[in-house]
Amino acid sequence: MRRAALFLALALTFIARPALATENVTDFVLDNGMQVVVIEDHRAPLAVHMVWYRAGSADERPGASGAAHFLEHMMFRGTETRAPGEFSERVAANGGNDNAFTSYDYTAYFQRVAADRLGLMMEMEADRMANLLLRPELVETERGVILEERNQRVENEPGSLFREQTSAAQFLNHPYGAPIIGWRHEIEALSREDLNAYYTRHYAPNNAILIVAGDVTPDEVRRLAETHYGPIPANPAVTERARPQEPPQRAPRRVTMEDARVAQPYVTRSWLAPERDPGDQRQAAALVLLSELLGGGQTSVLTTALQYDNPVAVFTSAFYGATSLDRTRFGVVVVPAQGVGLAEAEAALDAEIARFLETGVDAEALERIKFGLKASRIYQQDNVQSVAQRYGRALTSGLALEDIAAWPGILDSITGEEIMAVARDVLVPERSVTGWLRAPEADKTANTEVMQ
Amino acid sequence: MRRAALFLALALTFIARPALATENVTDFVLDNGMQVVVIEDHRAPLAVHMVWYRAGSADERPGASGAAHFLEHMMFRGTETRAPGEFSERVAANGGNDNAFTSYDYTAYFQRVAADRLGLMMEMEADRMANLLLRPELVETERGVILEERNQRVENEPGSLFREQTSAAQFLNHPYGAPIIGWRHEIEALSREDLNAYYTRHYAPNNAILIVAGDVTPDEVRRLAETHYGPIPANPAVTERARPQEPPQRAPRRVTMEDARVAQPYVTRSWLAPERDPGDQRQAAALVLLSELLGGGQTSVLTTALQYDNPVAVFTSAFYGATSLDRTRFGVVVVPAQGVGLAEAEAALDAEIARFLETGVDAEALERIKFGLKASRIYQQDNVQSVAQRYGRALTSGLALEDIAAWPGILDSITGEEIMAVARDVLVPERSVTGWLRAPEADKTANTEVMQ
Repeated sequence: MRRAALFLALALTFIARPALATENVTDFVLDNGMQVVVIEDHRAPLAVHMVWYRAGSADERPGASGAAHFLEHMMFRGTETRAPGEFSERVAANGGNDNAFTSYDYTAYFQRVAADRLGLMMEMEADRMANLLLRPELVETERGVILEERNQRVENEPGSLFREQTSAAQFLNHPYGAPIIGWRHEIEALSREDLNAYYTRHYAPNNAILIVAGDVTPDEVRRLAETHYGPIPANPAVTERARPQEPPQRAPRRVTMEDARVAQPYVTRSWLAPERDPGDQRQAAALVLLSELLGGGQTSVLTTALQYDNPVAVFTSAFYGATSLDRTRFGVVVVPAQGVGLAEAEAALDAEIARFLETGVDAEALERIKFGLKASRIYQQDNVQSVAQRYGRALTSGLALEDIAAWPGILDSITGEEIMAVARDVLVPERSVTGWLRAPEADKTANTEVMQ
Repeated sequence: MRRAALFLALALTFIARPALATENVTDFVLDNGMQVVVIEDHRAPLAVHMVWYRAGSADERPGASGAAHFLEHMMFRGTETRAPGEFSERVAANGGNDNAFTSYDYTAYFQRVAADRLGLMMEMEADRMANLLLRPELVETERGVILEERNQRVENEPGSLFREQTSAAQFLNHPYGAPIIGWRHEIEALSREDLNAYYTRHYAPNNAILIVAGDVTPDEVRRLAETHYGPIPANPAVTERARPQEPPQRAPRRVTMEDARVAQPYVTRSWLAPERDPGDQRQAAALVLLSELLGGGQTSVLTTALQYDNPVAVFTSAFYGATSLDRTRFGVVVVPAQGVGLAEAEAALDAEIARFLETGVDAEALERIKFGLKASRIYQQDNVQSVAQRYGRALTSGLALEDIAAWPGILDSITGEEIMAVARDVLVPERSVTGWLRAPEADKTANTEVMQ
């Protein structure tokens, strides 16, 4: 019954908003190498202005983890002509809001404003692209802010610490093994020179993508971009990114973390997995569908098997980061039910994955998932900022506009056989990390005390 | 009986060779920053000439693993004025032999020749320090040689592959996690420019230590060194080494590698451990004694417990690399007896380490070990090349001559309480990696086939 109602709702949505299914995208490149993408959406007199740098935490100098994120903070702390904090104050004074985010492969800055304020946004963003002033005393202040952010988000969250440790175990060589926010001891040691080196090396128009989405025209964006970003010279030091890649992973790894603050223990397993590559997205698309089949919602394979048929778990899920410059992780999570141990939960997970690899994909489930992905893509198109973010993530992950355009069709055309082929390729023990997070057991505590 | 005989033999050795117990060491620094250490030993008209660079595999650019070792090979492939292979040919023509080795913290070149050939050795070594010619076609030839070396030493040896995978799991952030010879895919991708960058950055007199041991005088060595090495200018780009350090390790890791070629399965466990630091060597000395207590020979704790009292193992051992620039590994190995599984062997290991941590150090065993270390040091002093190597390793690992001189006395003064304190500090689960190496089990093979 519930499923039928959902289908009906989706069908109505499709009928109600057909015009949004097509994205009106124009792209061009400025003379200094800055890529510009314009996504027109004239439903409201608003614009989202974003600058994405093809540089994230995985582009940091080894030993300087956290530099990309630290620099992102410093981008709000003034330029040669603008005072610390002035950027966001002027955005707000003009009725807009702004923010920024750092990931493994990119750092992005955005403002959402009335469309007629676009020129001012570009003027200020171009200013901090070229003229950032890293005031030594503000670097120290900001370090305190970032360490406190790390305290709150990581040190005080056993689950976050656990993700750091399992991620480090997943990557034997690639910088994805280090946390985006940085290892604490390296944040503490980052110097103004480290931040400046990262800024000088990566912040340049030929390493940036300007995305403007909303009530704008390509001609207008081009004129404004040439005025504000055009005068900044290209940096010849910008080269194609080449990070250390993984060697063959030959041995399954297990990570067991105990933390007295853990109220709800759980098991994770992740595998090194391929990502979306330009002109080569079918494996990644199959993995997206696989993650939905295994762990996406109440009718998924793991949920049905481990929460209903043989109720050993209270929660199951699957995750996969398709949009990534280098190889990424495919993973599953099982939170055991009260009284069920992690070993039992893991054994049930193993059994269910083995069964899935033997029985294959349920055709009806696959169709339902494809339909759901289409629906959520269409819902997402209502939010111009989400659309712009999708473009930014893909473009900074090495993909081209054609890949973005092809992606929905590829997702829709993936067969059950392709999903099973990629599942057999990826879900192998050699490239897996199994993680257990739990509170110390009573007898284990005694043992640990002896060993301490 | 056997023990008594050994003691007697050692006692006789002490009486017979008292003069060798004191090392006759002189050191000075050339104007260009090259450190020189002279170890006099006039028993034979021979000299060992060594140049140690404070640069090893842990100083490579990330993604360029294997560069230090590759460059070591290229150092035999000619300079601007000397043909490929000429170096070793001339050493041999002068009745000597030569070689080189690369480790995490250093790269070293040495020749053993008649003492009157020392000038020629310096002339040739100085030439390749300053004038190496990386001929592109020879880089390609040498890449084939090195890949074949990796085939033989690593790919064809499951135990070596296993050490690579466990070492990568031990270090979450530090470059010690990458193999000295390099990951295969990175050796394949190393460019002539990578090798040249490493050479230009690290091969300079102010980053090198000249060690001359044998039938030489400090005055003579100084005169020759000033003639041959003196004209090479210091490189201002040489700075103190600072590699990425480990974050807190919060979760025990397990690595299980299956390889059909494994005839004899085994269990290893290693812990992140402190190293010898300048003026701060007591913890490392205590760990050296701990490794001997646990796994050094037929009367050690693990051997007695696991091979004799409860014979679950056919071999047990402990390892520790005290002389290291950064934090290193302390480990144990247990090879189970026929019919004993890895789980059972590991449980016996756990039980024995727990028992040891409760009962503490046997005073008589500690005295015996200290005596044995003294004896082997004195034996080793017979070999001037071993003595020179000991100096080279220590000096390139950040230690000073005073630390080398103090080390035997420190080892001798360590108490059982200090050993137990460091054991409780180091042998904690959070910083451990447990490794299982075995052939695929019959039923596991079937399972793996399904998953492949």
